Amino acid sequence: MTQPDALITLAPGIKVSPGFIAEHIEMYKSFHRAPELSSQEHATAAAIEARLHELGIEHFRSGGTGVVGLLRNGEGPVIGFRADTDGLPIAEETGLDYASTATGTLPDGSTTPTMHGCGHDTHTTNALAAAAYLTANREAWAGTVVLLFQPAEETAAGAKAMVDDGLWDRAPRPEVVLAQHVMPQPSGTFTIRPEHMASLADSWRITVRGRQAHGSQPEKSIDPIVAASAMVLRLQTIVSRELAPTTPAVVTVGTFHAGLKENIIPETAEFSLNVRTPDEDTRTKVLGAIRRIVNAEAAASGIGEPEIAEISRFPRLYNDPEQAERVEAAFRDAFGEDSIVNAPLGMGSEDAGWLADAIGVPMVFWAFGAFPAEEFEDGKVPPGNHHPAFAPDSEAALVHGTAAALSAMLCYVGR
Amino acid sequence: MTQPDALITLAPGIKVSPGFIAEHIEMYKSFHRAPELSSQEHATAAAIEARLHELGIEHFRSGGTGVVGLLRNGEGPVIGFRADTDGLPIAEETGLDYASTATGTLPDGSTTPTMHGCGHDTHTTNALAAAAYLTANREAWAGTVVLLFQPAEETAAGAKAMVDDGLWDRAPRPEVVLAQHVMPQPSGTFTIRPEHMASLADSWRITVRGRQAHGSQPEKSIDPIVAASAMVLRLQTIVSRELAPTTPAVVTVGTFHAGLKENIIPETAEFSLNVRTPDEDTRTKVLGAIRRIVNAEAAASGIGEPEIAEISRFPRLYNDPEQAERVEAAFRDAFGEDSIVNAPLGMGSEDAGWLADAIGVPMVFWAFGAFPAEEFEDGKVPPGNHHPAFAPDSEAALVHGTAAALSAMLCYVGR
Amino acid sequence: MTQPDALITLAPGIKVSPGFIAEHIEMYKSFHRAPELSSQEHATAAAIEARLHELGIEHFRSGGTGVVGLLRNGEGPVIGFRADTDGLPIAEETGLDYASTATGTLPDGSTTPTMHGCGHDTHTTNALAAAAYLTANREAWAGTVVLLFQPAEETAAGAKAMVDDGLWDRAPRPEVVLAQHVMPQPSGTFTIRPEHMASLADSWRITVRGRQAHGSQPEKSIDPIVAASAMVLRLQTIVSRELAPTTPAVVTVGTFHAGLKENIIPETAEFSLNVRTPDEDTRTKVLGAIRRIVNAEAAASGIGEPEIAEISRFPRLYNDPEQAERVEAAFRDAFGEDSIVNAPLGMGSEDAGWLADAIGVPMVFWAFGAFPAEEFEDGKVPPGNHHPAFAPDSEAALVHGTAAALSAMLCYVGR
Amino acid sequence: MTQPDALITLAPGIKVSPGFIAEHIEMYKSFHRAPELSSQEHATAAAIEARLHELGIEHFRSGGTGVVGLLRNGEGPVIGFRADTDGLPIAEETGLDYASTATGTLPDGSTTPTMHGCGHDTHTTNALAAAAYLTANREAWAGTVVLLFQPAEETAAGAKAMVDDGLWDRAPRPEVVLAQHVMPQPSGTFTIRPEHMASLADSWRITVRGRQAHGSQPEKSIDPIVAASAMVLRLQTIVSRELAPTTPAVVTVGTFHAGLKENIIPETAEFSLNVRTPDEDTRTKVLGAIRRIVNAEAAASGIGEPEIAEISRFPRLYNDPEQAERVEAAFRDAFGEDSIVNAPLGMGSEDAGWLADAIGVPMVFWAFGAFPAEEFEDGKVPPGNHHPAFAPDSEAALVHGTAAALSAMLCYVGR
Repeated sequence: MTQPDALITLAPGIKVSPGFIAEHIEMYKSFHRAPELSSQEHATAAAIEARLHELGIEHFRSGGTGVVGLLRNGEGPVIGFRADTDGLPIAEETGLDYASTATGTLPDGSTTPTMHGCGHDTHTTNALAAAAYLTANREAWAGTVVLLFQPAEETAAGAKAMVDDGLWDRAPRPEVVLAQHVMPQPSGTFTIRPEHMASLADSWRITVRGRQAHGSQPEKSIDPIVAASAMVLRLQTIVSRELAPTTPAVVTVGTFHAGLKENIIPETAEFSLNVRTPDEDTRTKVLGAIRRIVNAEAAASGIGEPEIAEISRFPRLYNDPEQAERVEAAFRDAFGEDSIVNAPLGMGSEDAGWLADAIGVPMVFWAFGAFPAEEFEDGKVPPGNHHPAFAPDSEAALVHGTAAALSAMLCYVGR
Repeated sequence: MTQPDALITLAPGIKVSPGFIAEHIEMYKSFHRAPELSSQEHATAAAIEARLHELGIEHFRSGGTGVVGLLRNGEGPVIGFRADTDGLPIAEETGLDYASTATGTLPDGSTTPTMHGCGHDTHTTNALAAAAYLTANREAWAGTVVLLFQPAEETAAGAKAMVDDGLWDRAPRPEVVLAQHVMPQPSGTFTIRPEHMASLADSWRITVRGRQAHGSQPEKSIDPIVAASAMVLRLQTIVSRELAPTTPAVVTVGTFHAGLKENIIPETAEFSLNVRTPDEDTRTKVLGAIRRIVNAEAAASGIGEPEIAEISRFPRLYNDPEQAERVEAAFRDAFGEDSIVNAPLGMGSEDAGWLADAIGVPMVFWAFGAFPAEEFEDGKVPPGNHHPAFAPDSEAALVHGTAAALSAMLCYVGR
Repeated sequence: MTQPDALITLAPGIKVSPGFIAEHIEMYKSFHRAPELSSQEHATAAAIEARLHELGIEHFRSGGTGVVGLLRNGEGPVIGFRADTDGLPIAEETGLDYASTATGTLPDGSTTPTMHGCGHDTHTTNALAAAAYLTANREAWAGTVVLLFQPAEETAAGAKAMVDDGLWDRAPRPEVVLAQHVMPQPSGTFTIRPEHMASLADSWRITVRGRQAHGSQPEKSIDPIVAASAMVLRLQTIVSRELAPTTPAVVTVGTFHAGLKENIIPETAEFSLNVRTPDEDTRTKVLGAIRRIVNAEAAASGIGEPEIAEISRFPRLYNDPEQAERVEAAFRDAFGEDSIVNAPLGMGSEDAGWLADAIGVPMVFWAFGAFPAEEFEDGKVPPGNHHPAFAPDSEAALVHGTAAALSAMLCYVGR
Repeated sequence: MTQPDALITLAPGIKVSPGFIAEHIEMYKSFHRAPELSSQEHATAAAIEARLHELGIEHFRSGGTGVVGLLRNGEGPVIGFRADTDGLPIAEETGLDYASTATGTLPDGSTTPTMHGCGHDTHTTNALAAAAYLTANREAWAGTVVLLFQPAEETAAGAKAMVDDGLWDRAPRPEVVLAQHVMPQPSGTFTIRPEHMASLADSWRITVRGRQAHGSQPEKSIDPIVAASAMVLRLQTIVSRELAPTTPAVVTVGTFHAGLKENIIPETAEFSLNVRTPDEDTRTKVLGAIRRIVNAEAAASGIGEPEIAEISRFPRLYNDPEQAERVEAAFRDAFGEDSIVNAPLGMGSEDAGWLADAIGVPMVFWAFGAFPAEEFEDGKVPPGNHHPAFAPDSEAALVHGTAAALSAMLCYVGR
């Protein structure tokens, strides 16, 4: 005899029906099939708006394709919950039956396959599932949850766009902003730490302007390829000589372009770099060293300061120690002492922090696993975020992400 | 009272009418207006053929757009005379009323303005004028002049193409091949030396294959930008440390391209270089050093030998000492002792030598001036070959180039 | 009213008289005044022997200036306790009234001031004080403590010398080897971790052999200064590009010597480097990369593989997780939960591990503080090990070091 | 029957006895046996003074070990003739029976074997032989020959020292200064050119001041070895990229010294370099580029401008075109048209020019051969100047050097 009414427990005191689960897994697959590139999340935003409307949640746009839902439930604390919405220009290789078939348009006008290769579809679905639960269980909580569906996380543009568009003029000021990320760790485990949860990241484009001449007449030139090559090599010394060996930082030159013809010394060389640093002090030091080296190597070639243009800037993702401890305690209570595994910090970046830092309120960010334990046996690891085969388990992603979101929210707004 | 019949003396015993001069200046301007890129000299070749036909000179195509005229005049020595025909992808800035308005198509499919920026229009006209003179003055000489209208000098492809197409199977074997070049030196002056008259030149494309990874995970990558930058810097030591200070050689890296995104360490970096060397021994040494350094720097990065592809190769331009002395003596006789100024050798390259070297006959190559003396006062120099403002005086170019061509030819075939 | 007999509690159940404290502080100051350089600890060894004799402890020499005491107390566990004894070639700048006035002779024959700048005088005194306590309190324990007074820790030569000299053939095999180090952390605090407690360190000397020539004739030379400079720069990429940003490793080139005269390109360049790595895998990777880069850069210069000579090699210092937890628990019990502060790991090195690794028994190593808490206020830190002003508080060093040594020993041999 | 009186003709009209030849060959061997280092030519100067005294020639000291002879012969032109006197710190390997057995003291106090490895013994003997001839043949000439026995040519200090010591206040102002050098070219041949006869040479010592730290703490250091290595590599680009390929110049870093211990990043790195340039303009350009690069690479490391100290400076050696033509014509007359072979210019340096430049009078400098023709067969060359086996033929050196000296002098002061 079946028990159609048997409820599923997401966390102590948080129960949902099998239909709730099934419905949201379908929602997740639907988002997964149709990823949109950063700042182009038009259909995704429309789908979110439609669902919020369905749930009766007041909402508005902020930052173009950003959507803000205001889930009010009387007097009580105000909290923010961020879910990012954009996909990546990656050709999916998961072999899933709900794999992406979508494409997007890159800044240079070319077309690319797109993929939810970072799991933002999970985050969006978790936020909408939590909203559905909170809407249906108003007796369990009081206050206001500001649902922040943020676009363009991958380009570090979305959080800033929402803030700059007056987000916090229209939404009530929260006492904390929460956010989460699905990561390649076993289902049911969590990573949450005080202080820095992700690297700061900065990308720069540097244009070295020399003097063109025929390749046989170097004396009439100032060779920008030699100058830029010297810069590339000297930049290596920042990590090797200017930082403590225990400071996790990286300076990558990802592009280098100069010249059209092998026998013409070109006028300019252009390269771009990406920097990851663990905190503001290191960031300031490394960016200062890059500027110093680039300018000095230009001077060594007898040319002026190269043009430095910022491509993107990921701010800090700083977990307020007190608030992070509060959420961690909630997780320990809900999911067990062993659920906190604190996987090693990589060098990833996140712009969620700006949603809180911009108004000086604390942030709490955690990672949750959604991969079967056997994928980690014998030192194996499943393909990680941004890999074409990145594939969290859909049910685990829905269940554990929604459970974590609700547990964290309710430790602030729960009755 | 006008003297319409007064003849103009190009050199002792070589007289032409004012009409001859005027007609060929027009011909020169006509070539100047319509430069065609290397290996695309279709209209130029057709114009040459039409003129040879008009002069009654037997001719055939060789190497695509190369034209060979066989100017026979009974028993006697056989000599070759080379004139190159191609223009350059340069936007002319001479302000001349006969400046080029033509365009051409580059290998990548793009369109470019074209210019006779190296004076090949001069050479072609000189050869046709000399042919007209020899046709009209058959009593003055005996033998055969093989007129070699060579395409694609700028890419070092034309001489080889003509030879490979069976040039010397169809034309009689000459005892010497002559060639000339207009240069920024005063009208009436000549440069002619024994042995090396131009640099050997080699162009290579080098592809460094590393391993791609995210910019935050250098440990998973082999960074080809760092490897290629190290190669660029190490290549500088060939000229600075491996050659005698008195050996004129140059190694220029003219292009460097790698990467699409600042936060992705790319799979490959590609750069191209151009080498100028004064002789075969130095060439062998420098090319060997490049290969050694590129392979070793790749090994320093833990990767295999980069792919090295030859883009072009300019052979030696070697003046046979005995024959060069013979032509120089003819010039001293014809134009005076002071006409031989031997301007300093630059690092230019020429593929004419292959027309002679391929069949083991001696070559004589000289430069002639066609610029007013005042352009050299007070240490000034007029814009040189390949400069957008390169502008020999049209009458001087015609007169001195034709006079030199005929003087040199006649010291072999003259009666 | 004074209480001359009141005993002082070092740890629960471990009480000593004020006289015991005073006597050993004097012993400490006496060692501090007369530091001897590595492998030259003759007077220090003699003083240790005299004291062991006085205490009635059987002893023998091992590894030259190493002294082994066998403190037997009936049936029971056997443990080892290591104390290092050598000083440094540093001119002391502490201003202490018991500052060093000693000198030593360096390998090159020159004389240097010496200083116990790393606190080995503390360790030696702690071991002797513990021995005195155990001798006087035989009822409190059973078994054998092998006291290992090890020379030449600073040069990584002493532990190996003792083992190679047959240490473990003469002393009974212990079930664990204990060792400790005074560090700049507050008095009463300890650092103890499972697994790696210090960096592995390797020092190499590299000789690059080029070809000598006059400075005006680089073409006759192979320039070893250019080759070695390229090596120095390329070595930077190991840390910057070949290791994960989170892997704490360092490659330092500390010396570079080449040439006698500015206008002679020398035959050879010699440089030496020091490498710190957190574990064997990273060590293998980094040393392999150094060898690869040095050989490849030599190849880029057209020379054979440079000579690489090992200067020194600090092995791992690996805390057996189970045994470290046992000692840590003993410290928590004895000194309170808050006493374990686990100061951040630096990049220091230690050869104590070899005393245990050589015979495959577990090691436990900890650091203890001996500096007043106020020296750490407001982010300040006192001068650290190897600094000319390094000055642990003499009483704190004696009390906390001896307390830790006894607590750790007694958790194995205590009744 | 012997002919003891048969005279030997050095040049048309210049005859000497066999005894004259034999005596001066002995003198040459005597100088050869006892070379003295630069600025230490005490015995050599004394021998010269003794000989001048013997010849009745007025003389005085100038510049320490410099000797000036005033050979007056009535009214007539005044000319200078320079002969340098110093030897080199080289261990002679000629195997000659008159090889050097002398030693000298280097600036650092160490002792070195010495050798007349540059042939200054030849020059000194030639000048004394010419003086003897002129003294004995006063009827053949009129005027004054200022004999300049100059010390310290090898360190570029001697000419300047003589001038600074008031040479031209005490000696009459000449209308020309003559000087010669023995070179590895066949006996009886000469090299004499207008304008630049030798490279300008500059030597600098550069001290890069970083910040010392332990090798495991690069973040506390500014690594001067990395900075100086980057300088060494960047300096290569001056010759490879900033000068025309046809400009013969060289920048050699001959020494590099830094650090005492492989695990200490040192405070400073010091390197020295030697620069050869063909003319003042290139010299200015290259020295400026060195300064620019050194300062910029220091800035790239975040340190101030390194200290640059001049070690030595060889001025230009500029042959006045008119006067050089006069001497060349005298040589053609005396030794035949084929005697002027003009061996290729190397990158050698000479400070003789300052003796003339300091007072604005013209200089003429030539090289003469003193090696058997067979040493040059089949492309061979005998060991050159500064080589331990450098060995001009003693008779050829005496005969051809004296003949050239007298021929050149007499084309000014001959009757």
